[in-house]
Amino acid sequence: MPKISEKIQHIQQQIRSENHAMAIGLLNELNVADQASILKGLKLEEQIRIFQELKEPSRVFEFMPLSQQVSLAEQLPVAQIIAILNALDSDNFVDVYKRCSPQLQQQLMAKLSEASRQTLKDLAIYPEGTAGALMSSSFVSLHQDLSIHDAIQMLRVVAADQETLYLIYIVDEQDQLIGVVSLRQMIQASPETSIAEIMQRDVIYAKIGDDQEDVAKTLTYYDFMALPIVDEHKKILGIVTYDDAMDIMEAETTEDILKSGAVEPLTELSLKTAPIFTLYQKRVSWLVILVFGSLLSGIGIAHYEETIAAHIVLVFFLPLLVGSGGNAGSQSATLMVRALATGDVEFRDWFSLLSRETLVALCLGGTMALAVSVLGYVRGDIMVAVVLAISMLGIVLMGCLIGMSLPFILNKFKMDPASASAPLVTSICDATGVIIYLFVASKLLF
Amino acid sequence: MPKISEKIQHIQQQIRSENHAMAIGLLNELNVADQASILKGLKLEEQIRIFQELKEPSRVFEFMPLSQQVSLAEQLPVAQIIAILNALDSDNFVDVYKRCSPQLQQQLMAKLSEASRQTLKDLAIYPEGTAGALMSSSFVSLHQDLSIHDAIQMLRVVAADQETLYLIYIVDEQDQLIGVVSLRQMIQASPETSIAEIMQRDVIYAKIGDDQEDVAKTLTYYDFMALPIVDEHKKILGIVTYDDAMDIMEAETTEDILKSGAVEPLTELSLKTAPIFTLYQKRVSWLVILVFGSLLSGIGIAHYEETIAAHIVLVFFLPLLVGSGGNAGSQSATLMVRALATGDVEFRDWFSLLSRETLVALCLGGTMALAVSVLGYVRGDIMVAVVLAISMLGIVLMGCLIGMSLPFILNKFKMDPASASAPLVTSICDATGVIIYLFVASKLLF
Repeated sequence: MPKISEKIQHIQQQIRSENHAMAIGLLNELNVADQASILKGLKLEEQIRIFQELKEPSRVFEFMPLSQQVSLAEQLPVAQIIAILNALDSDNFVDVYKRCSPQLQQQLMAKLSEASRQTLKDLAIYPEGTAGALMSSSFVSLHQDLSIHDAIQMLRVVAADQETLYLIYIVDEQDQLIGVVSLRQMIQASPETSIAEIMQRDVIYAKIGDDQEDVAKTLTYYDFMALPIVDEHKKILGIVTYDDAMDIMEAETTEDILKSGAVEPLTELSLKTAPIFTLYQKRVSWLVILVFGSLLSGIGIAHYEETIAAHIVLVFFLPLLVGSGGNAGSQSATLMVRALATGDVEFRDWFSLLSRETLVALCLGGTMALAVSVLGYVRGDIMVAVVLAISMLGIVLMGCLIGMSLPFILNKFKMDPASASAPLVTSICDATGVIIYLFVASKLLF
Repeated sequence: MPKISEKIQHIQQQIRSENHAMAIGLLNELNVADQASILKGLKLEEQIRIFQELKEPSRVFEFMPLSQQVSLAEQLPVAQIIAILNALDSDNFVDVYKRCSPQLQQQLMAKLSEASRQTLKDLAIYPEGTAGALMSSSFVSLHQDLSIHDAIQMLRVVAADQETLYLIYIVDEQDQLIGVVSLRQMIQASPETSIAEIMQRDVIYAKIGDDQEDVAKTLTYYDFMALPIVDEHKKILGIVTYDDAMDIMEAETTEDILKSGAVEPLTELSLKTAPIFTLYQKRVSWLVILVFGSLLSGIGIAHYEETIAAHIVLVFFLPLLVGSGGNAGSQSATLMVRALATGDVEFRDWFSLLSRETLVALCLGGTMALAVSVLGYVRGDIMVAVVLAISMLGIVLMGCLIGMSLPFILNKFKMDPASASAPLVTSICDATGVIIYLFVASKLLF
């Protein structure tokens, strides 16, 4: 992403010309994120060969996408994998472990340290998509009666193993979360103060079973660096950090966007490397489902075959009228789905939004009606112009109301409002549009 | 967003029943982010009345959207506004100031402290959308020859005014950026060490004129907490923090999504409160532009009027065939625009993606051709089935290639690839579909 592409191209050239020593020397000078990004572009055999020569393999491993981490893990010597896994944050460690082959899992289980086995047991039980599966178990918790001076001394000791030192959670004797202190506050306070004096009580937290998207939203909503995750007794079990939240938000947004284009989410897959058949699968079901919408349009047309045959000029305007309804509807659905996703509107706002949308739709429909009636008058006569104007106004109005309502209706049926994709809205609006247009025409033209 | 809605409803009730003392008492118990969120839902007069009674008005102000900050600033007593602005991070401070009315700006200028006036002068010059406009000028920079112990003492002194203490930038005599140290590293190192020994050289930074979206991407790519912003002499001028990056990413994503639905971005506006006329403006131009696509379809149909009149059964299948091409094309465009936005693919991958897409399209088109030919045989005859199958294959293939190529073509013409909206792709594919279908039919049916 950032502009170090010349260096990258140079390294890729070295690799292509089998000049591995040179390539590895250059790689090791880069930031670990860039090293991971270069490895991603290589064939698996090359990845393995180069990865083993890196100066900080565990830190590079951290920046790889999960799918690549797993395929590397399957190929590397077990001893090296164990060293790498031990260095990973616990949430990532568990994610990789869960996706390894049963054989590798067995080998790992036999050789992992007791502490790592415990982490696995603790974290692997939480279902995917929950706060529990997202959280890391490496966080700092201290007791409230420590002085700041002693607390900082303790931080020195545990620092190396923890994902973040910047938020320290304060617990009572039962490990229940009772406060939070930032390292910044500790640095600012005088060393003799006790933690209890400066800690913030009333900590905001998430529950272990909460949906990961909600956790990410809470974190960004409060601009926190980390959010503590607790069990039903308010005992702190882990933390979710802002970088995990950013990844989740990006993944969830991608999922919503693909749904808006009538594509099933391509979790963890790259468009460049996903198998052709998988891409086919993610798309074919929606294409087939949408056929039914188009068939409805076809039936509408068949029903008014006589009207069409009598006034063949109507066919010329059919795509224009029907398309405008679909376009206006897609706009409404897009606005609505996004506003729901960002929390700008909520489901209970539906009614007030609908009345606002009606006004917008009347303005849009009015403009379009005016434009199309001029075209109709030029190509047909005054009656055609009237038919077109009335139909356009009705079609755009109906399209907007459908586009705005569909996300809410899907939600009522416990489906994701983001499934109100442009193609779905378009195909529903098309059928409605055909019927409105030909109905108006059959009534007004003789 | 988080589930404290009972408390919120309770407070809203108190406000509605004019029970202000009670409402303010309850409000002050909440987190500042929640206080801001409740204020957002109130009328401006109520906001002002309640805001002035809050315990930590400056911190609540920080969590408000910019538009609300500005409208509050215009109404509050100047003395209070100055207190609040002084407490804000410098990037936010400048944003608010820039949007105030000229009268208020004049009043503020007369009463702001010398330091704040300097900040304004320094930051207000950077154009919107650049790293300079996004950055905050409150960061910590130290010299490399300090010991860790002395450095921590210095942090204590400056702590209160800085946006983050967690990354400390190291500069030479010319204020040039030469390293970075995290507070975490400082806590871990022994107090006598010098900063030079533990600092990371080779700092990743952005330039003052860089696009804000690139800055946000760099920050998330490296999982940094903050990114230093430098001038052409590598002198550090400010930092951009992860929470700003998250806001930018969300805003840019929203912009892309609205474009994908053929709506102009509604920057900073809520769907609930945006003026009707603004919503109309954001949508009408695309609806009118798309008319031309539909007119092309109409012209296609008019050209083959005789074929249609001779085989009226063709009209029944028209929406189905044409719609499928549009749907497949929307899918391709959605996949491509998203993959470009996340950095999964780059423009130079176009050719290899096109050949993969051709394979996917042939599979999709084959499936759809099979399905539609059965329908065609039932409703027409074997020849109709053949026409439908050939057309469907051609239309889906063409739709996919158009959907995949349009984002690249837009980029070639220096337009945003996200403008390859579903409605645009659909209307281009519709016209192509009409022509393919009726051309095949006119050649095969006599």
